[in-house]
Amino acid sequence: MTAIKRRKISVIGAGFTGATTALMLAQKELGDIVLVDIPQAENPTKGKALDMLEASPVQGFDANITGTSSYEDTAESDVVIITAGIARKPGMSRDDLVNTNAKVMRSVTEQVVKYSPESIILVLTNPVDAMTYEVFRTSGFPKHRVIGQSGVLDTARFRTFVAKELNISVEDISGFVLGGHGDDMVPLVRYSYAGGIPLEKLIPKDRLDAIVARARIGGGEIVNLLGNGSAYYAPAASLVQMAEAILKDKKRILPAIAYLEGEYGYQNLYLGVPVVLGGSGIEKVLELELTESEKAALDKSADSVRNVMKVLN
Amino acid sequence: MTAIKRRKISVIGAGFTGATTALMLAQKELGDIVLVDIPQAENPTKGKALDMLEASPVQGFDANITGTSSYEDTAESDVVIITAGIARKPGMSRDDLVNTNAKVMRSVTEQVVKYSPESIILVLTNPVDAMTYEVFRTSGFPKHRVIGQSGVLDTARFRTFVAKELNISVEDISGFVLGGHGDDMVPLVRYSYAGGIPLEKLIPKDRLDAIVARARIGGGEIVNLLGNGSAYYAPAASLVQMAEAILKDKKRILPAIAYLEGEYGYQNLYLGVPVVLGGSGIEKVLELELTESEKAALDKSADSVRNVMKVLN
Amino acid sequence: MTAIKRRKISVIGAGFTGATTALMLAQKELGDIVLVDIPQAENPTKGKALDMLEASPVQGFDANITGTSSYEDTAESDVVIITAGIARKPGMSRDDLVNTNAKVMRSVTEQVVKYSPESIILVLTNPVDAMTYEVFRTSGFPKHRVIGQSGVLDTARFRTFVAKELNISVEDISGFVLGGHGDDMVPLVRYSYAGGIPLEKLIPKDRLDAIVARARIGGGEIVNLLGNGSAYYAPAASLVQMAEAILKDKKRILPAIAYLEGEYGYQNLYLGVPVVLGGSGIEKVLELELTESEKAALDKSADSVRNVMKVLN
Amino acid sequence: MTAIKRRKISVIGAGFTGATTALMLAQKELGDIVLVDIPQAENPTKGKALDMLEASPVQGFDANITGTSSYEDTAESDVVIITAGIARKPGMSRDDLVNTNAKVMRSVTEQVVKYSPESIILVLTNPVDAMTYEVFRTSGFPKHRVIGQSGVLDTARFRTFVAKELNISVEDISGFVLGGHGDDMVPLVRYSYAGGIPLEKLIPKDRLDAIVARARIGGGEIVNLLGNGSAYYAPAASLVQMAEAILKDKKRILPAIAYLEGEYGYQNLYLGVPVVLGGSGIEKVLELELTESEKAALDKSADSVRNVMKVLN
Repeated sequence: MTAIKRRKISVIGAGFTGATTALMLAQKELGDIVLVDIPQAENPTKGKALDMLEASPVQGFDANITGTSSYEDTAESDVVIITAGIARKPGMSRDDLVNTNAKVMRSVTEQVVKYSPESIILVLTNPVDAMTYEVFRTSGFPKHRVIGQSGVLDTARFRTFVAKELNISVEDISGFVLGGHGDDMVPLVRYSYAGGIPLEKLIPKDRLDAIVARARIGGGEIVNLLGNGSAYYAPAASLVQMAEAILKDKKRILPAIAYLEGEYGYQNLYLGVPVVLGGSGIEKVLELELTESEKAALDKSADSVRNVMKVLN
Repeated sequence: MTAIKRRKISVIGAGFTGATTALMLAQKELGDIVLVDIPQAENPTKGKALDMLEASPVQGFDANITGTSSYEDTAESDVVIITAGIARKPGMSRDDLVNTNAKVMRSVTEQVVKYSPESIILVLTNPVDAMTYEVFRTSGFPKHRVIGQSGVLDTARFRTFVAKELNISVEDISGFVLGGHGDDMVPLVRYSYAGGIPLEKLIPKDRLDAIVARARIGGGEIVNLLGNGSAYYAPAASLVQMAEAILKDKKRILPAIAYLEGEYGYQNLYLGVPVVLGGSGIEKVLELELTESEKAALDKSADSVRNVMKVLN
Repeated sequence: MTAIKRRKISVIGAGFTGATTALMLAQKELGDIVLVDIPQAENPTKGKALDMLEASPVQGFDANITGTSSYEDTAESDVVIITAGIARKPGMSRDDLVNTNAKVMRSVTEQVVKYSPESIILVLTNPVDAMTYEVFRTSGFPKHRVIGQSGVLDTARFRTFVAKELNISVEDISGFVLGGHGDDMVPLVRYSYAGGIPLEKLIPKDRLDAIVARARIGGGEIVNLLGNGSAYYAPAASLVQMAEAILKDKKRILPAIAYLEGEYGYQNLYLGVPVVLGGSGIEKVLELELTESEKAALDKSADSVRNVMKVLN
Repeated sequence: MTAIKRRKISVIGAGFTGATTALMLAQKELGDIVLVDIPQAENPTKGKALDMLEASPVQGFDANITGTSSYEDTAESDVVIITAGIARKPGMSRDDLVNTNAKVMRSVTEQVVKYSPESIILVLTNPVDAMTYEVFRTSGFPKHRVIGQSGVLDTARFRTFVAKELNISVEDISGFVLGGHGDDMVPLVRYSYAGGIPLEKLIPKDRLDAIVARARIGGGEIVNLLGNGSAYYAPAASLVQMAEAILKDKKRILPAIAYLEGEYGYQNLYLGVPVVLGGSGIEKVLELELTESEKAALDKSADSVRNVMKVLN
């Protein structure tokens, strides 16, 4: 008997980002959603899932949204989004953060692989390049099915600031980044436009530099304002855009953290590059010619990622 | 010179419900949004607004979203949504809650009226019937421009539970309530359907009673699960549905807390009834014939509201 | 290698209804679309498909839309929508119409079955009850995968007229019909509501009767106004709603022409009844208790369908 | 009393393009819609409007859609879209076409100005540069409120062909044109991208030239395929995107036919240039530095427009 089944998406980590991601996936009716957190957080996870579900008759979407601490409930997910992990706390060394989150990645990934061996995994947890690598090597999945998020968010912030600067629709502003997240990002301003017009022709250099600098520390700006916690609306929206590209096989060109085997001259490294994102995950890495200074900046970004990776046991 | 301006919506109170309301308004491009909280919370409010704005290039909506503690920024709003106020804390008497929130309503309303004298106000703060009345009498606005939310949320929960029970799309389930929020709600099950078929024909009485009972304490169920805090996704979605009906002049029939002057036999009372919601706010109160037991339940609900109102100074 | 593929929908018949159906399917990104017509109409079919595709960058949807006269291109469709056939021309007997379109159904169905043996088929061609039966018996498909459209359209017209009468949002008006299409439809006004309130309480009987009468001849009203041709916007929208319910496994309660084997007391007959429409097609027929006069009207409608079916060779 | 009113949009000309435009405006709930044609076509116009309206309960939009031959019904429109006029027929000289349609523009514009003196007018009728000028001078409106469409459509076709060539989402392909419509368009390929990457780096020159050539005659390609009639889906979508930018004050950067008074070195000429489109209509013309060959091509395009304008009496 034929039967068309809904897609299934699991979101690991039911904090603000995970929960907002679940909501935005449901609003787009991309599939049924399983929101997973640790047993100690099972009730709040169920509470958030139920609250969202109770919004569905009013927002007009059909999606089962389940809160759970059991990975069995994630079985046969098409896409799994990992937002779990801790944020760096005052006094914590970077290495401690890396090792703590790497441990989380390993434990999460084992469960994901066990129950959804054919899934495509998106990773948000920081430091995201290294964490994506950790998920990759734990999973044993082919590289096209383990993908990290950073560039969609970095460019979203950049685009927002440009749209404000020019008083133009966000739909008409594009940005372009390579390399790592935040501090390590390598913006390619010459590939950034308003209505197709290079931004360099529309915004004075010093203003544009200031906008790039602000985007670079965009996550920190939100942390400072919130006082307690970090950004979740734009990170969730970014994950959902990547998931949508996969679930609808849209073949979008988006910046993503991809495993490189020779591209851009790097080996065995997860790094932010433009990719084609479709039903198979990363269907292609797009290679661009870089200027010397761009290549130097990307090398620096790659070194930075490698340094974090060295910490991994 | 002609100029088509965007609508403007202010959301007072930047907690989880206020912030989620702002997001959902922006996603629907209903207008520009001002999120307001007290000066002590100004930075987090700005942080949430900015985080949301940074989601806009990815989600594809154009809306200015501003966080502020200054009511000047709300000037000439078309719709103002009040979510401000405190939740009842352990050890706090109901009267203390009423008086504290009433004070908040008065102070908020004065500012709203000063800067947006032509606006339509939606109230969510609990106890919502009394708080809507307090906003009404403080504002001096005509009754059709001061409206409380409870029935959309109560029926959303009811519809969710029925959809699960029957395994049917939420789009095809409808519910109907009169009276106060939560405990005080008067469900009219005979006006509740799945695909137009009265639920009483599809669900055994004891199951239907259990669903009604669960909807009645739907807010409490979420509070218990979360452990710390209360529902915000479904409340926000409910406010946004009401705001959309007004901003698009849709003339929707929705349950709302309306000021009654004779309807259903009540005088000078804010109570939940079915209304037509359009560009002028409440354009009509729909009066239904009630059975004796329904009328008795509604009387009890009205008494309960009056008792709360007595606390108001 | 895992790969999430887009759904595939074929629309047979590239007249106004077929083409508009293709557009509306694409706008909702429900899948890739193949628009099929006879070889003599291949170029116009390609032209419409291309024109639609050229709208996609502006409307913002990703969908391949192909025009063709070759059924090979429809291979492995999830859903097939049949709009092919001729309209009754002046001087043509009803029996001639039936036999001509039945022949079209047979030839179309053979091709559909050959290339998409697991598909779910929706039929619009008139006389729709008999044509759905013809597709069913030609296909050899199980009954839940061959479905006719009439009730969604009939109630859409009814709802439109009621919304106008009451000046209320179309979202809050529901209608309910059983039986055949148009003249043969059996409206259940007692199951029709505005905001959940039975219409009989809101609209005087004579006005309501007039609205029912108008809905009954709703197709003819459009034919008369157009002068040349028949309705296609609302029929296309109706087909798309049914297809969406299936492709997203929404489990909606919609009126549909279903094969009855005992339900409502009928045997081996395609007739309009409320069903649950989901990923398997018709997942359930909902049986209602009818009043004597309703049952009599439905019997008459069933007789009318049987009379048409007798014409089939 | 405050009252939020729906926007109002009138579409002049109820042929395929006008009707499809009305549908797409309604689907986006941009406002109430009045579809206007000549008295002889009043009934079909009413038929199309009613058919569309009957799709609204199923598609889920609230919009009054009215068919009429009386301009009184268009009173106080916010935006007026002119699609009226004839297509060039075999044996008809270009000058005859220009004069016939210019006469239509004058008669339509007089009525539009009479009933909607504050409206913003969008023109589609061919030859569109000259017709937009004719509407401008007849209306007496300021230049920012009379705008022609061609570039959105030309780039939509270009983007479609590129998306197919690269097998990439249409969302990530952008194009850029200046000058007149179709044959007279001046494509700026260096400002055209896939995911921000200049197309010249992704597509071999000969393929890219072929795509440009195909886009240039994109309208003719559809005419040839249809055999009888011309494109309407993509033209309608293009008009709706421009109308949406205005009605939601989105401040989008779009190519539009704007009245130039010195920009790009031209005086008193309607020509396709990039503009900012918002609530006031054309809020800004964006001037780009052109290469010599681009400027030469644009001069040729301007000459072509002037030659057509000379025909106007």
